[in-house]
Amino acid sequence: MLRPVDIIVKKRNREILTAEEIHHFVGGYCNGDIPEYQMSSWLMAVYFNGMTPQETADLTDAMIRSGRVLDLSDIGKPLVDKHSTGGVGDKTSMILAPVMAALGFADPMMSGRGLGHTGGTLDKLESVSGYNVHLTEQQVRDAIAECGFAMFAQSDDMVIADKKMYALRDVTGTVESIPLMTASILSKKLAEGTKYLVMDVKFGSGAFMKNKPDAERLAESLLKTGEPLGLSVKTLITDMSTPLGECVGNLLEMQEVAHIMRDGLGKNRMSQSLENVTVDLAALMVQSVMPDKSDEDAHRMVRDVINNGSAYKKFIRNIELQDGNPEDLWRPIKCSEVYELRASSSGVIKQIDAYKIGLSSMCLGAGRRTVDDIIDHECGIILRHRIGDTVAQGDVIAELHYNRKDNIEEAIKLASDAVEIE
Amino acid sequence: MLRPVDIIVKKRNREILTAEEIHHFVGGYCNGDIPEYQMSSWLMAVYFNGMTPQETADLTDAMIRSGRVLDLSDIGKPLVDKHSTGGVGDKTSMILAPVMAALGFADPMMSGRGLGHTGGTLDKLESVSGYNVHLTEQQVRDAIAECGFAMFAQSDDMVIADKKMYALRDVTGTVESIPLMTASILSKKLAEGTKYLVMDVKFGSGAFMKNKPDAERLAESLLKTGEPLGLSVKTLITDMSTPLGECVGNLLEMQEVAHIMRDGLGKNRMSQSLENVTVDLAALMVQSVMPDKSDEDAHRMVRDVINNGSAYKKFIRNIELQDGNPEDLWRPIKCSEVYELRASSSGVIKQIDAYKIGLSSMCLGAGRRTVDDIIDHECGIILRHRIGDTVAQGDVIAELHYNRKDNIEEAIKLASDAVEIE
Repeated sequence: MLRPVDIIVKKRNREILTAEEIHHFVGGYCNGDIPEYQMSSWLMAVYFNGMTPQETADLTDAMIRSGRVLDLSDIGKPLVDKHSTGGVGDKTSMILAPVMAALGFADPMMSGRGLGHTGGTLDKLESVSGYNVHLTEQQVRDAIAECGFAMFAQSDDMVIADKKMYALRDVTGTVESIPLMTASILSKKLAEGTKYLVMDVKFGSGAFMKNKPDAERLAESLLKTGEPLGLSVKTLITDMSTPLGECVGNLLEMQEVAHIMRDGLGKNRMSQSLENVTVDLAALMVQSVMPDKSDEDAHRMVRDVINNGSAYKKFIRNIELQDGNPEDLWRPIKCSEVYELRASSSGVIKQIDAYKIGLSSMCLGAGRRTVDDIIDHECGIILRHRIGDTVAQGDVIAELHYNRKDNIEEAIKLASDAVEIE
Repeated sequence: MLRPVDIIVKKRNREILTAEEIHHFVGGYCNGDIPEYQMSSWLMAVYFNGMTPQETADLTDAMIRSGRVLDLSDIGKPLVDKHSTGGVGDKTSMILAPVMAALGFADPMMSGRGLGHTGGTLDKLESVSGYNVHLTEQQVRDAIAECGFAMFAQSDDMVIADKKMYALRDVTGTVESIPLMTASILSKKLAEGTKYLVMDVKFGSGAFMKNKPDAERLAESLLKTGEPLGLSVKTLITDMSTPLGECVGNLLEMQEVAHIMRDGLGKNRMSQSLENVTVDLAALMVQSVMPDKSDEDAHRMVRDVINNGSAYKKFIRNIELQDGNPEDLWRPIKCSEVYELRASSSGVIKQIDAYKIGLSSMCLGAGRRTVDDIIDHECGIILRHRIGDTVAQGDVIAELHYNRKDNIEEAIKLASDAVEIE
């Protein structure tokens, strides 16, 4: 067995690590035998020299084994899930899980929280009063048995290596590494027990990957790494240069989802971009499990369960099962203040920048600047126009809803800067 | 001021760090504000992306300022010193310092210990019973005033950053970095107060740099980094594929030096390689201080002070001043055992490998496998033949002197493997 420093040097010298070496290194790091400073040096070597798909799969496997794993293979339904690299106004998960359930699949959707300009699924769910994301394994099973899906937080005893390594990468300049990102994503999804994964790899200002070639590289790495791990991975590369749908915020986003689910597709032109991406992702999820389905068939199946209300039933049933109060979906949001952002000139809206809108929403209280910040679930941004719309000077382009005034000037400036009219 | 992670990312992205950023990072590391894991990640980024000469000079400066500095500028003589990247049988320092003193210069020679196959000047000096390398600043000044040079260990409060960083590099795969090596060497030499430095950059099996182009790169980096720091650096690239001179070991090497100093140059054909390198280095040291001297003049000046015994007087006076017993230089070594390594066939000696001889000597007890090992100063290897000699099968090529038998088989095998006869 090589010493830790030899494993670092081997990676530094662009040699390929064996599964045994990777397991030894990650395992040693988790049990404290290998100190942070050797892991961080190795992570930087990986940043520069990359990893083969097999090495990435071995790393993923070592990370999965660092904690508890959900084995849901006895559920008796195809286990299918979606994961996104994160964005602004991205509430597709809340539609996709009920759609999969309505189609007879099971979705064990383990999600995360938001930071900076991006929102997090757990935060959005918790904006529905009472909604409990901290489920035991039995509660996950019960929810899936009862309504076909569960939405929950990763517990402390799962993928421990990922938590430790991510915190370390965050402070050592090693976040932006395709194999490390791949292993982080796949280890979590495999630990939750899914067998079919559709990845929404976003690019653009509001995404982690700012440009499409980087998103394509990550997508390729996810595909190639899933294979040796026995995970079916499909990827969709989507644009996150402008927010998805009408609302950015937590309860606001849940309410936008609720309306689509209750009323059917195509009822709100401001939700169109969200609906399109969601249906595309759902169709891919269908095709993962049923590879014989044509694009057209898969899309039709998805639209049907949304438009006939069967997905809506699963959606509401899940909220009740996880102790949420569905009445929150229909009541007015509780914000004391509203700022109307108006068009500074007449013309056609050329851009509404996702990154700036995400940061603006964060400033209003809907997001976290640092992990310890407390979110105000009620506030956020409602867009009244979208890219391509013709507006007159003074027209309301967006409403900023908020309670705290601390950062309102920054929020207004960011929202205002986000909009380009030509 | 950037956060530590931003400084790591900047270097990772191949951007050039400012002096302020480098000082902030190294200073923060030394006072504990920046943890080991950020330093190790930064060191790996430096390994991959390198540093400009100005960045390397700024790093050197930050490392010097992490501890106490000797200011010997009031000594009234040119402060000149040599440093070597380390080798086998390399005892040039013990000749160079007295030669510089005999020429009227001052040499504040701060040295290190040996590890693995390489020997260390401090270990060699301590083989002379009583010799004290732990000098106070006042004792360094007194020794230089009295005999023109002092030979001493770096004290714990000097170049603290180098000690911390070197220990970290050793376990994080970041030793082999030209700018980090440059800053480590130059920070120590500048902290000892020297103004003119001649660097013996060795290449070959017994050297840190195994090939000449790497040695040339280090030499160039030392030159270019010395300039902005106001240090005159000259470099000599020398061959360390075979041991220097006749003896490898601690007291054995001191005795070889003593004979050259007392008897003059050219008296022992086995010491010829050592004498040539030493005179070349000394001549370069002369030319550092006196740039008008021709190669021929500088060489003659050096040879003269060795052959006329004035360097020898300085040598003996220094040993007395630093509490050593000069009688040890002439007595037989105290080893209970000797193994005669004989030629396995007749022919011409093609190679006596420095690395293997160094390791063999370490196995005999003359070196350290790990930093905690205790050295036996008496033992080591005396070479009876050199490359190019014609030998008959059974001729003694080397004598292995030792007391401990623990690793004698390994020592014999290494010494035997070191010799190639054609």
